[in-house]
Amino acid sequence: MNIIRKLNKRIDEVNSLLCIGLDSEIKKIPTHLQKERYPQFTFNKAIIDATADIVCVYKPNSAFYEARGAAGLKELKMTYEYIQEKHPDIVTILDAKRADIGSTNEGYTNYIFDYLKSDAVTLHPYLGSEALAPFLKREDKACIILCRTSNPGAGELQDLQVESEPLYIHVARIVSKIWNKNKYCMLVVGATYPEEMKKIRSLVGDMPFLVPGIGKQGGDIEKTVKAGLDSEKRGLIINSSRGIIFKSSGKDFAEKAWDEAKKIKDEINKMRL
Amino acid sequence: MNIIRKLNKRIDEVNSLLCIGLDSEIKKIPTHLQKERYPQFTFNKAIIDATADIVCVYKPNSAFYEARGAAGLKELKMTYEYIQEKHPDIVTILDAKRADIGSTNEGYTNYIFDYLKSDAVTLHPYLGSEALAPFLKREDKACIILCRTSNPGAGELQDLQVESEPLYIHVARIVSKIWNKNKYCMLVVGATYPEEMKKIRSLVGDMPFLVPGIGKQGGDIEKTVKAGLDSEKRGLIINSSRGIIFKSSGKDFAEKAWDEAKKIKDEINKMRL
Repeated sequence: MNIIRKLNKRIDEVNSLLCIGLDSEIKKIPTHLQKERYPQFTFNKAIIDATADIVCVYKPNSAFYEARGAAGLKELKMTYEYIQEKHPDIVTILDAKRADIGSTNEGYTNYIFDYLKSDAVTLHPYLGSEALAPFLKREDKACIILCRTSNPGAGELQDLQVESEPLYIHVARIVSKIWNKNKYCMLVVGATYPEEMKKIRSLVGDMPFLVPGIGKQGGDIEKTVKAGLDSEKRGLIINSSRGIIFKSSGKDFAEKAWDEAKKIKDEINKMRL
Repeated sequence: MNIIRKLNKRIDEVNSLLCIGLDSEIKKIPTHLQKERYPQFTFNKAIIDATADIVCVYKPNSAFYEARGAAGLKELKMTYEYIQEKHPDIVTILDAKRADIGSTNEGYTNYIFDYLKSDAVTLHPYLGSEALAPFLKREDKACIILCRTSNPGAGELQDLQVESEPLYIHVARIVSKIWNKNKYCMLVVGATYPEEMKKIRSLVGDMPFLVPGIGKQGGDIEKTVKAGLDSEKRGLIINSSRGIIFKSSGKDFAEKAWDEAKKIKDEINKMRL
């Protein structure tokens, strides 16, 4: 199925724009799980079991699995298999922020789309669309291009003026007008920059945004939802990672994650009425 | 040791600017190795045994190992361990083209610098230096920032005019003047763009360039060396991957790789006299 259709179907089914980031850094998961054979997977499974009823997307960040080398990659794969088996309606995004030249990207599409079977991936724009062709040509997947990132120093390059507009606006423009000819593109737009998000929304129509930056990074839910909703009151995949999954470091971590996820989901929905 | 000093020492010792890219895609390695327990490692070991006397750098591209998931990562780790044990003087670069926000980059530094113990890594500039701090602060490592990539469509973003100069020149400028305060930065500059390389060299002094794009991609050695040498007739890490490692698909693949590597090394050195 077209991934954007899958996303919108899921959003409507559970009435949720919430994405949980499975940034399951080994040092931060509860101590009582550290001695498990598969600590990251055991942690993720508990988070998924607790929260699957209220999320539209799960988004593991590849970095926290690669940090453990082969062992971490195995547990990332187990996490994907678990979601695909138990919750095939939930969209999966690998937050990998990749981009190499054409032939090398085929290595990455093998990893992300074929080995993990992720629905979508985040990508850097710097090498251009010709390089990204192995990703962009995949009609069964979605490509999420970094446009305005959530970090405090995002503007160092992204605010540079090109042809009388900032670089991030130029990226939004070329992705929506040119790269997105297959209609499977989305953009990363940080919740920490609601004014920028508003400008991007006015430019790109109903293209969905993956929105990091609420919670620990300080992005405001109300401003984000007001700035970014599309014409169908969807168009946003609002991510929280550490603020949800590490809400408690005790045995109640999964319950507390659900409580926090529910709170954020409801807070988002209040602004969609 | 400072990695740039290690690099220059190695260049002088073996009189070589040649880097071999260990892009050991599983489907392309010789058939008789496919049934080995560790096919990518077995292949790499043979290439390393054959060519270590004439290279300054080995550069595995992470994509071709990630493509096989946990199994590939294990063989990448074995490859690093082998180089570190047998040839500790050879510089290692993980061509991973990473960049995430600050805290997440710590996952990547764990993977690349601490787990693999790579000397250096390639990085995307789009998120800015604030995000890349976990990489840039490592005084025992080197960061190689994408500036002008070798792919045909590199100019889509990199040629955009910012403040009356192209974006890639702006990137070269901020990396050399600001990001490089620890003196451990290098730039990726493709051999397919010798005119651009010349401009970058005139701007950044003796900062080393990692140069992909000779061989299969069509970059010219003579033009590259003329455009890019620094004031000490070094300053270039000239990479060839597939053109060397897949020169033969028979049992003589390692010998043929040496022949080809030697030919390229000599061709480069002719232009350094």
